[in-house]
Amino acid sequence: MSEWKTIEWKNNKVIMIDQTQLPNKEKYIKCSNYREVANCIKKMVIRGAPAIGVAAAMGIAIGVLNINSDSKKVFEKKLLKICREISETRPTAVNLFWAVNRMKSLYYKNIDLDILKLKKLFVKEAKNILMEDIQTCKDIGINGSELINDNSVVMTHCNAGALATGGYGTALGVIRAAFEEGKNINVFSCETRPFLQGARLTAWELSKENIPVKLITDNMAGYFISRGMINSIVVGADRIAANGDVANKIGTYSLSVLAKQHKIPFYVAAPTSTIDINCKNGDEIPIEQRDHREVSHIGDKRIAAKVEILNPAFDITPCKNITSIITEKGICKRPYKASLLKQFKS
Amino acid sequence: MSEWKTIEWKNNKVIMIDQTQLPNKEKYIKCSNYREVANCIKKMVIRGAPAIGVAAAMGIAIGVLNINSDSKKVFEKKLLKICREISETRPTAVNLFWAVNRMKSLYYKNIDLDILKLKKLFVKEAKNILMEDIQTCKDIGINGSELINDNSVVMTHCNAGALATGGYGTALGVIRAAFEEGKNINVFSCETRPFLQGARLTAWELSKENIPVKLITDNMAGYFISRGMINSIVVGADRIAANGDVANKIGTYSLSVLAKQHKIPFYVAAPTSTIDINCKNGDEIPIEQRDHREVSHIGDKRIAAKVEILNPAFDITPCKNITSIITEKGICKRPYKASLLKQFKS
Repeated sequence: MSEWKTIEWKNNKVIMIDQTQLPNKEKYIKCSNYREVANCIKKMVIRGAPAIGVAAAMGIAIGVLNINSDSKKVFEKKLLKICREISETRPTAVNLFWAVNRMKSLYYKNIDLDILKLKKLFVKEAKNILMEDIQTCKDIGINGSELINDNSVVMTHCNAGALATGGYGTALGVIRAAFEEGKNINVFSCETRPFLQGARLTAWELSKENIPVKLITDNMAGYFISRGMINSIVVGADRIAANGDVANKIGTYSLSVLAKQHKIPFYVAAPTSTIDINCKNGDEIPIEQRDHREVSHIGDKRIAAKVEILNPAFDITPCKNITSIITEKGICKRPYKASLLKQFKS
Repeated sequence: MSEWKTIEWKNNKVIMIDQTQLPNKEKYIKCSNYREVANCIKKMVIRGAPAIGVAAAMGIAIGVLNINSDSKKVFEKKLLKICREISETRPTAVNLFWAVNRMKSLYYKNIDLDILKLKKLFVKEAKNILMEDIQTCKDIGINGSELINDNSVVMTHCNAGALATGGYGTALGVIRAAFEEGKNINVFSCETRPFLQGARLTAWELSKENIPVKLITDNMAGYFISRGMINSIVVGADRIAANGDVANKIGTYSLSVLAKQHKIPFYVAAPTSTIDINCKNGDEIPIEQRDHREVSHIGDKRIAAKVEILNPAFDITPCKNITSIITEKGICKRPYKASLLKQFKS
């Protein structure tokens, strides 16, 4: 086990490692109310679809704990308000809405319990979501590692690691599992502008475990792929539509096009909670547009001229560019519509 | 005319705008000897293939001016040493070697002149190279603008602008000419990690002339291209092989693959001095590997975990991905071998 944790429930507080400060500082943030948690999600103190799901659940649990009323009516009203505010933090990762719905449905399933028992149940459910998420990642790792050959170089984008989940990671879970099986794996991490999750988080996380990793800028991927230096690409996902189209960190689409051009496999690793079966295809996935300051500044330093900036945080990789989708339940192949539905329902 | 100049010869000094400080500071550097000029090329105070050619010529001229000897033998020896040192500053842009060879051949053509006359000739030649380069860019602009439709959105990468040349620019020369003809042009500038030429230089240069420009990170290109928001891509070149393969700033290759995938034209704009007729194809072009600090730091601030970093400064775009190559002599079409040779010799 690593000596650090992405997110934890401790003494009725939510503790998160501050991912905006990594790798320069290993600082932890302690949230005592749901608004602090919501703010951490918004500001990307915690990020990564599964980790956002865990944080949302814990945020709701802490919010529920803080409700000061004996009235069930008030309790329900406040719960729904908390859920709404947590839902509005970020639009793309479906795990956020999945976690909120799970907490809501916990309430309606147990609506007859008294408030004290309900509060305990919310805390237990949030902790369960964290534990399940770690196990889910390990299962994704086991399922995906068979796709990673010994002596291979794997490229990844953004951070779909322990930091993006309760622990272990999705894309990095696959890499970790292959590495733990004794395979000789080298990783190429794309720095992932503008937020630099690859440079700051993936590189940090892998180097902590002595998994060999080389850092490149995003625009170098084509250079190394075209020289035959990359054997496969594995990324995470923020939302998977019913047809297998995948929303993931901006830049993922370009990598999928390069992978196709050079005939190397392109894998997506994600828990089934990332599948949005109500979303027909990628066109229906909302893409978050974030603050231009993420592009124009590094900390307080301006690194760009004063012009208009666009900052979509995600893009859509069409299912036809994806070799396999790896979940905790197995490996999905094309046509994804049938295979994803089967996994979603099982 | 713009109020700033990329490079100038003034009172036997070479004056350059410091491109490492833009856009935050408009600072000029004055070089009094050839080693200062060589250092400016190495450190990318001045960059861009044609501008490097101009700087090289001026560096040699200033070096020659400073030779303190009446002996022709000493003069020649020192000239060759200067040329060698200037040649060793950067490996990829062929304009550097083109300019060095032009200055050397000036010497051998005029070997019978006395040293004072030779010195004057070197200064005149360096000034000529600057003036010719500006005119060449304007001709590239006129030739290329016919490929840019009214009401179109043009993507560019790195800075192939006035800052990359004596003035006016190659890729940005094409955009400038289309804009000056009254066409409604919008530019998407990719920020161009790690040195941020797009964010710092292209965005600055275009906004100074009120040419509408939007800045994006490199990994966003696929997102906007896939949504049909880009009508064409125009880039510069650091070296063009005889078969039409193009070395240009890292990330160019990926853009060419995306352009092909989405059937939008991909243009390269460069002077004929960028054609290396002795280079059979892209495999023979040396790719500069630069300091990892460019990737890991912004100024003094570390932005990446402490892992191995790779930093190739250029990549190769194969001729099959290029719709046209625009030079001052006209527009080359496939097969490039014949059309480039014709332009090179004319």
